[in-house]
This record gives sequence, structure tokens and C-alpha cells, in this order.
Amino acid sequence: MKVIVIGATGAVGKAVVAELGQRHEVVTVGARGGQHQVDFADIASVRGLFAKVGKVDAVVVAAGALHFAPLATFTPEQFYVGLNSKLMGQVNVALVAQEYLNDGGSITLTSGIVAEEPIRNGVSASMVNSAVEGFVRGAAVELPRGLRINVVSPTVLQESMESYGPFFVGFEPIAASRAALSYARSVDGVQTGQVYRAW
Amino acid sequence: MKVIVIGATGAVGKAVVAELGQRHEVVTVGARGGQHQVDFADIASVRGLFAKVGKVDAVVVAAGALHFAPLATFTPEQFYVGLNSKLMGQVNVALVAQEYLNDGGSITLTSGIVAEEPIRNGVSASMVNSAVEGFVRGAAVELPRGLRINVVSPTVLQESMESYGPFFVGFEPIAASRAALSYARSVDGVQTGQVYRAW
Repeated sequence: MKVIVIGATGAVGKAVVAELGQRHEVVTVGARGGQHQVDFADIASVRGLFAKVGKVDAVVVAAGALHFAPLATFTPEQFYVGLNSKLMGQVNVALVAQEYLNDGGSITLTSGIVAEEPIRNGVSASMVNSAVEGFVRGAAVELPRGLRINVVSPTVLQESMESYGPFFVGFEPIAASRAALSYARSVDGVQTGQVYRAW
Repeated sequence: MKVIVIGATGAVGKAVVAELGQRHEVVTVGARGGQHQVDFADIASVRGLFAKVGKVDAVVVAAGALHFAPLATFTPEQFYVGLNSKLMGQVNVALVAQEYLNDGGSITLTSGIVAEEPIRNGVSASMVNSAVEGFVRGAAVELPRGLRINVVSPTVLQESMESYGPFFVGFEPIAASRAALSYARSVDGVQTGQVYRAW
């Protein structure tokens, strides 16, 4: 299979590339790194990316910014950081991918454990990750040609504990390579509309 | 209790006003109707509303626009209809309400069954309603002074079958008065961070 991984240079993305690269041709994409660059919050940039890469069998996204802050001081603009990036960035990729996926192909997006397990300063993460999961449930029932769409919800990674650890005291971190298995289940599997909980 | 109901002139809102009005002082708010008007997508308008109404014991929102269309033709702009209105409109109210709620007061928002049960043309509804529920999970753990926040997820209403019926074939519609009971559970009850499924 030819698989495009957007967010290929992040902690999750690197592990996904290593996992999928064992059996598939992987095209790596980042905001700045990777073989191709994209600003996925801008659907025109996503269209340009797919026009260059062409037809694919699977699309994986492991990217997206979120703002963390106390609820008491959160502003609408801070909520839109995550809505424009982690939510609509991934939605933009899914919208464009519909046209470039071969029959039976798949889209795999990324949410996160905070969708279901709230943390301090994490109200935007709970909102945006839940939105991504809702989008996947809604899109799965409409995709044509045997196309599938799933979402992986990782817990905090061992590789990210230095920066995110204080937000996730008591959560059991997992290796990025273990989170990558959930992406492989989605890409190589048969299900659609699923939330794969990597925790 | 003094309760402010935003979206008081809609099918759900009218039933909520009737239910809560039996035991509480209700202030009705609409986009055009009601005792006060608000454009809840604009947080400045929400601030103006609360400055006029003053301290309250409960805030209910049963309002918000969503775009319905096939996934294949959905545009980012169409997703932002629901993000700017049903999602961020309700978030704006919750953000401002923090400052105007008396100790132990509550916020009750509205999602919808499509968050969990997808329908044709409903991908934005699945996304936005899930986002509202995620916001509530995230906000509940941070609210101070015993403040609570819940969300009611109604199925299609008997009163709305003429316009929404074709989207909800096979779904069992409920009377708006029955959906209103879930808002009463939230306002008069003790729980927080809950999704009350009215179906």
C-alpha cells in the first residue's frame, strides 16, 4: 500500500512511519519536515499536497495544535487554536482524501485520551478530541467505495513525558511504538467508524 | 432559583421554560424573541446580556445552528457554521456564566443524539454535538464554588418531525416536554459533567 502520514516528524508520527514502513510505501509530510510540507489548517494547502502525491491507499494524520489553559481564563480565540488546527486540519485532510483514496482505502485521524478523561487546563483538548471522534462517527457512514475512517486516541507517550508529564500525573504513559499499533490496526484492518483507544 | 434560558423560543426551549417555570423565575432569551436578545456566537453580546440580567442560579442553552449536507460536498465553511454557532455559542455562554452564577449554580447545554448515532448528511452534527459533550466533560472538573455543568442530548422531537423527520427515519421521536425533564434533572439536581440522553 501507499500510505501518506501527515505529522510524520512528531512523536506519534515517527513511530507510525516506523511501524507502517515495515510493509508499506510511506510518504512523510510535516509542517516543516518530511518529504512534503503542508499547512493542513488551510484546505488549499491540503489540495496542493494531494495533487503532488497522487492516489494513495491510506491517509494517517497525527498532528494538530491545542491550547492548554485554565477554564477561568480561556478565551474564544484560544478555543479556536484547536478548532482551526487539530480539528479542522484533520477534517480538511479527510475531505480532500476522499478524492485521492483508492477503493477500500482508509483515513486514520488522531484524538487523545483527554476526550474521555478530563485533565486540569484541558477543556479545549476534551472538546477538540471529542469533536474529531464525532466527525469520524459521522463520516464513516457516508464514505463511498469501501473507504474507511477511524481515529486513534492515544494516552500520554513515554517520549512526551518531559513536556506533558505534569498534566498527566497518574496516567500510565505508553511507548509511541505501542500507540503506532493502533494506527496499523486501522490501516491494515477492516473496521470503520472506530475509536481505537491506545492506553 | 433565577434561571436564564437562551433559545427560549425554540421547540426545546419553550418546553424547558414551561417545565422550569413551575418552580423557578425564568428569564427568556432568544436571537430575536424572548425578554432579552443575544447573538451568542459573539462573546461581547453574551457579556452584554449577563450584565443586564445579573446574577443567576442556573443557565440553560437550547440553541445553535448546524449545517446538514452530504460528506462528499461538505466545505470547511459549512463545518464552521456549527462550530461558530452551536459549539462556540454555547461555550461563550459557559465562559461568561462562570462570573454570573451564584455558588452551587449550574450550566446546562444542548448536544443531540447524532453525536452518538450518525445519520446521513449529519457529519457536522456528529462533530459539533460531540464537541459540546467534550467541552462539558472538560469544564466540569475545573468549575469552582460548587458550580456544575451538564449537557442534554435530545433525540428528534415530535414537534420537529415535519422539518427533521426525513433525517430521522426509524428514530422514535419524543415530546419536547419529555426532553425538558432532562434539563430539570440538570438544573434541580446535583450531578456535573453528565450527558443526559433524552431518548
